Amino acid sequence: MKKSIPTIAVDAMGGDYAPGEIVKGIAAATHEHDARFVLVGDSRIIKNVLDGVSYRNGSIEIEHTDEFIGMDELLPRALSEKPNASIARAARLVKEDTIDAMLSAGNTGGLVMAAAKHIPMIEGVERSALAAVIPTRDFKTDTDGISLILDVGATVGCNVKHLVHFAIMGTIYAREILNISDPRVGLLNNGTEETKGGPELRKVYKLLKEVSGLRFAGNIEGSDIVQNAADVIVCEGMAGNIIIKLMEGIADSLFELGKFAAKKNMAYFFALGILRSGLKKLKKKIDYAEYGGAPLLGFQHLCIKAHGKSKAKAVKNAAVVAVRSAQDSLCEKIRESVLEFNTRLPLDSEPGL
Amino acid sequence: MKKSIPTIAVDAMGGDYAPGEIVKGIAAATHEHDARFVLVGDSRIIKNVLDGVSYRNGSIEIEHTDEFIGMDELLPRALSEKPNASIARAARLVKEDTIDAMLSAGNTGGLVMAAAKHIPMIEGVERSALAAVIPTRDFKTDTDGISLILDVGATVGCNVKHLVHFAIMGTIYAREILNISDPRVGLLNNGTEETKGGPELRKVYKLLKEVSGLRFAGNIEGSDIVQNAADVIVCEGMAGNIIIKLMEGIADSLFELGKFAAKKNMAYFFALGILRSGLKKLKKKIDYAEYGGAPLLGFQHLCIKAHGKSKAKAVKNAAVVAVRSAQDSLCEKIRESVLEFNTRLPLDSEPGL
Repeated sequence: MKKSIPTIAVDAMGGDYAPGEIVKGIAAATHEHDARFVLVGDSRIIKNVLDGVSYRNGSIEIEHTDEFIGMDELLPRALSEKPNASIARAARLVKEDTIDAMLSAGNTGGLVMAAAKHIPMIEGVERSALAAVIPTRDFKTDTDGISLILDVGATVGCNVKHLVHFAIMGTIYAREILNISDPRVGLLNNGTEETKGGPELRKVYKLLKEVSGLRFAGNIEGSDIVQNAADVIVCEGMAGNIIIKLMEGIADSLFELGKFAAKKNMAYFFALGILRSGLKKLKKKIDYAEYGGAPLLGFQHLCIKAHGKSKAKAVKNAAVVAVRSAQDSLCEKIRESVLEFNTRLPLDSEPGL
Repeated sequence: MKKSIPTIAVDAMGGDYAPGEIVKGIAAATHEHDARFVLVGDSRIIKNVLDGVSYRNGSIEIEHTDEFIGMDELLPRALSEKPNASIARAARLVKEDTIDAMLSAGNTGGLVMAAAKHIPMIEGVERSALAAVIPTRDFKTDTDGISLILDVGATVGCNVKHLVHFAIMGTIYAREILNISDPRVGLLNNGTEETKGGPELRKVYKLLKEVSGLRFAGNIEGSDIVQNAADVIVCEGMAGNIIIKLMEGIADSLFELGKFAAKKNMAYFFALGILRSGLKKLKKKIDYAEYGGAPLLGFQHLCIKAHGKSKAKAVKNAAVVAVRSAQDSLCEKIRESVLEFNTRLPLDSEPGL
């Protein structure tokens, strides 16, 4: 049920710049929304940071814990050895149902596992999906856009039902949070024809045409991903994970290559200087910080994974998404749509892809 | 067995610029290597093109057929309706064992299916793999490089044995044809730790450490693909297919974006002009035409898939690779390595990933 004031649990210790930038980002968010935040982490350090920043009175609480999980710690061992790690404590707080959503810039696997352990799944949903917002460009209309791609790593090895549910969850998130009014759903495949892929993907194709309230745009190929062929791109978690990391790798490589060229060649240095404002725009467009983090969908409360390198601005944007998800009853809307689909087109559990 | 003069069957009718550019490319190849080429396709048109170009006397034969498969025809139907399509006739010629290898710039699925129908697999190999050469950059040493990634679409849904065989085949191709002396093999996964991925990928990881003559560099992530973390990147076919198409899509988008910016803004136009020689170098580096096509590995004779947009130069480079594969007894070397592995570490057939 929707509460009067959204309350968000925040893993204050997760991320490369935690807790400083996490706390600063949340402080900034308190000025934008009427929401309450519970910062989970080392209370002494958190208080220190809070003393130096401005935040709305009464909007921040601290839940103390000494333990946290580092970005490179091995999972699931780290979680079982540290039951009071900030990410696990935050997830437990959510479960106690006074909290609407949670947010972490920490270890992605840690967030997925902590959520799976503590937060119940939405009725009828069997697997969670991590969704990433990616920049796109439509060359027919010369306009920039964004697409949501899921799953990017929460569920490796999906069956037919999982992928259909991902399409439903992605559609609702794109509509409610990304403000895309009637999102087109594309199924990632090795060709656009209906007959492409194995038997599971062909079945997903058939089913997506039947889901009510879902606008299925058919199969899309790898080259379509960045060309705005769909607003919601559905794929299995291993493929999605490789895709977003590859995109990050290519962006990094091109910027490094530019720096290298500017260093080696005065004329290039000069030319890149002229292009700077355009390159800045491009960099901003592919900057995760703009998009409010990656939602982990499928649990009864939204979990937002902010990028590990998040600074205050990225944390603030992620916090705003968490607040909006609570205001819009996002997870309740997902529950209703999944239930409607499961009732109308019941599916057995199937072997994975 | 190695023959004195390598003989290559060429699907002269496959590709966006067939048969003109295909025939011209082969004509150019005859001046570089002592090889024989059998051009399969419409003899009247092929002769017309040959009349206008220079080629080594006695190095080209024509095998006439009226039928061919268009780039957008539906498979496998097109193949069964046109048993004499040029791509199928070329594969049949290879089978008759007077031919060492084949080459086509036509429909990829058509090549894979025609090869599977007519050319026997290498003893002990169960699935074929299409391998693509991709450009990479190592920022630690500021050097450019290339990597071979396989499978990129021949086998969707691979098991443990298939992936290990792909690693062996890729290693031998990288060493013999790409001249990488001791190629590092990376297993594409959703993280670098040994424990990443499902049970199948973890088993592949363990086995790759055991293969003799193979230099295993561990798991690699999506972001490592373009950063020269491995010389041979092993992955399942659906993921590989999406990856290479995504890379193509990103390259196209960036060049389109550059053109758009140059049109809208005089200063950008000017700056991009200064950068032109650098951008040309970059474009050449990511140009498939330089790399001699994508080898389809696993059959007793090498099949080379040239890009559908191949012009004469790309066809010539692909033909040179086909000739070298015959001179180097590539497929025989693969047979020996696979046999050695299969004998030493026998694996049951396993369910797919």
